[in-house]
Amino acid sequence: MPAPPRPITFLSDYGTTDEFVGVCHGVMARIAPGVEIVDLAHELPRHDVRAGALMLRRALPYMPPGVHLAVVDPEVGTKRRAIALRTADEDRILVGPDNGLLALAAQRFGGAIDAVDVSRSVHRLDPVSATFHGRDIFAPVAAALAAGAELLDAGDPIDADEITLLHMPMAMVEPEGLVAHAVAFDRFGNITLDVEHQELADSGLRLGRPVTINDQPAHYTVTFSDVGAGELLLYEDAYRTLAVAVNRGSARDALTVGLDDEIIVRPA
Amino acid sequence: MPAPPRPITFLSDYGTTDEFVGVCHGVMARIAPGVEIVDLAHELPRHDVRAGALMLRRALPYMPPGVHLAVVDPEVGTKRRAIALRTADEDRILVGPDNGLLALAAQRFGGAIDAVDVSRSVHRLDPVSATFHGRDIFAPVAAALAAGAELLDAGDPIDADEITLLHMPMAMVEPEGLVAHAVAFDRFGNITLDVEHQELADSGLRLGRPVTINDQPAHYTVTFSDVGAGELLLYEDAYRTLAVAVNRGSARDALTVGLDDEIIVRPA
Amino acid sequence: MPAPPRPITFLSDYGTTDEFVGVCHGVMARIAPGVEIVDLAHELPRHDVRAGALMLRRALPYMPPGVHLAVVDPEVGTKRRAIALRTADEDRILVGPDNGLLALAAQRFGGAIDAVDVSRSVHRLDPVSATFHGRDIFAPVAAALAAGAELLDAGDPIDADEITLLHMPMAMVEPEGLVAHAVAFDRFGNITLDVEHQELADSGLRLGRPVTINDQPAHYTVTFSDVGAGELLLYEDAYRTLAVAVNRGSARDALTVGLDDEIIVRPA
Repeated sequence: MPAPPRPITFLSDYGTTDEFVGVCHGVMARIAPGVEIVDLAHELPRHDVRAGALMLRRALPYMPPGVHLAVVDPEVGTKRRAIALRTADEDRILVGPDNGLLALAAQRFGGAIDAVDVSRSVHRLDPVSATFHGRDIFAPVAAALAAGAELLDAGDPIDADEITLLHMPMAMVEPEGLVAHAVAFDRFGNITLDVEHQELADSGLRLGRPVTINDQPAHYTVTFSDVGAGELLLYEDAYRTLAVAVNRGSARDALTVGLDDEIIVRPA
Repeated sequence: MPAPPRPITFLSDYGTTDEFVGVCHGVMARIAPGVEIVDLAHELPRHDVRAGALMLRRALPYMPPGVHLAVVDPEVGTKRRAIALRTADEDRILVGPDNGLLALAAQRFGGAIDAVDVSRSVHRLDPVSATFHGRDIFAPVAAALAAGAELLDAGDPIDADEITLLHMPMAMVEPEGLVAHAVAFDRFGNITLDVEHQELADSGLRLGRPVTINDQPAHYTVTFSDVGAGELLLYEDAYRTLAVAVNRGSARDALTVGLDDEIIVRPA
Repeated sequence: MPAPPRPITFLSDYGTTDEFVGVCHGVMARIAPGVEIVDLAHELPRHDVRAGALMLRRALPYMPPGVHLAVVDPEVGTKRRAIALRTADEDRILVGPDNGLLALAAQRFGGAIDAVDVSRSVHRLDPVSATFHGRDIFAPVAAALAAGAELLDAGDPIDADEITLLHMPMAMVEPEGLVAHAVAFDRFGNITLDVEHQELADSGLRLGRPVTINDQPAHYTVTFSDVGAGELLLYEDAYRTLAVAVNRGSARDALTVGLDDEIIVRPA
């Protein structure tokens, strides 16, 4: 008796009001009937590989180990590789374009130990369209792997060390303070910094104390309600990553910062 | 052999284009593999507890009895309780913040007969974040209950009579007419009143007759097409609740009413 | 032991931020516990029967054969029929209003060989509301059929040849060129024409050659990146249907065309 299919998680910048996401689901349901598919998120900002990579990294620890399908693919139709990889920790399989989208999540699980180029996978649909590889390559490969197919049979082996990385700014503790960067914004204008829980200890910042953020007064607190409406705060978000917000307002607007801009935090 | 997991329904004001809903699904899939999760609705108006409570009340009778997870939680991070309760009728389990969100649905099923505070549930994730209790408390508790955990083991017992209620206006039949209130609006500008099917009999209104609604002429009809384009109508909506609409228009605009404003209906 | 339920696919113009889609899911989960439901798409342009019919036709071949529920129903509450039909090929069951929504998909699978009017189906909910037949008729009928109920027991037999058709423009090869029509737009302004892969051979157009589209210069290419930013291209889309786009722009705006407008393509 075959093993039950492993769950699939699915993240993309496809829409749910057109049929893109639904068609990928249908393709997977044909290949792996009864497979459990968790929609991690869709309609990500179009072609924003980094937003997808960051989301995948922070969300995957909460997902059941299985096959993790991700499609944000601005270079579809060019020579970019389509890949599937296995992580060192937890035996997770990641499937998507080789453009950095999978890199941060792979690192979080110990890096890739096996990888294949699935551009010409035996599991792909025929014909493969020029523009919809989610349907024609990524979804069918993910479903076949979830149903029990071997990773190394799903494509041509490639060097796991040669998977495309994602270049990100890196926060540093400098004499002038903690020099971090705005790596993501949410729809409320909250700013995610490139500083995770374990890095905070080295920053010299102390919870409950006043700080400045780009020279504006703020508090380093636990929750929004620790400061008044309209006030700036520094806090660890729900993923234990450092973030900046304005209580009932937009930190992005208050600081007028763009993606990757420096955010300098100092004790006040 | 354990019983199959009971289905979970899930309503929230979380988004599906960020990862909030997806991460809750992932947490539930880890704890209760194969559990059936019905997304009742997401992206409700942010922090609108009453909209969520009304939706839960009218929709739950159509949902399979099981565990009903609801998260609209403006006070997350404060001392508000997190609860799970069992209804007198149909043995439904409701899980969510104790802010009134669950109150109307619980009433519809005979009220709560058991309730626990799950803020420090053995089923919660560790650590619990300050802001994302959907992921850290509500989803894991709901999944554990769906998988067969006992309600009374899921938290600290509380008095089922002390669950937070939701204060709503109440329609009355007065000499001047039926004095109702605008308790909800949909995206088309249709207005839901606080008058249900069984209360209509007492109102003296007769189907097919002309009425006035806040002194504007209207008809009490079955469907939109019973009146001309741009005309005001009173009707029972698909949940047998009294509602006001404008055929191919917005009743909310036509009457310029806000939430809880009086809507006075009189025979013309 | 009964057969496992067949999968259901579900397309509608209902919203997912109100509870319409979720309630239909709940109704199906009650009638056919554990049934696999693939959401093909929701929030289609409201009442746009043709957009739904076109989407259903192109997406269904990627869906597992089963029960295909579709609800775009501007005439709900009138005398329009509610139907379920079986296709000649692949034994697919289509369920929805008899307004043309199912017609194109049925044709693609060899036409209907059996059909029933389900307006008064034994599987419907009671009472049936005037406005929400998705919940009260279509979803419960679809779920009952997925769970194994017989099509011919689900309603009153009707002549499969008398199902409402959808009137569409028809592309022609004329002396002046290929006279096609704009039959759909996507959210990026790409234009779908009424010309499918097999009809292209007769058009005299050759891949890689310059063409004019409504007298504007363009290229007939494989992918967007074959032309410069802002340039017009003719291409086969992911469903092998002829389409017009502007690389990093909107063809709809560039050609200022509306639905069904003529699109004349000539070799340059």
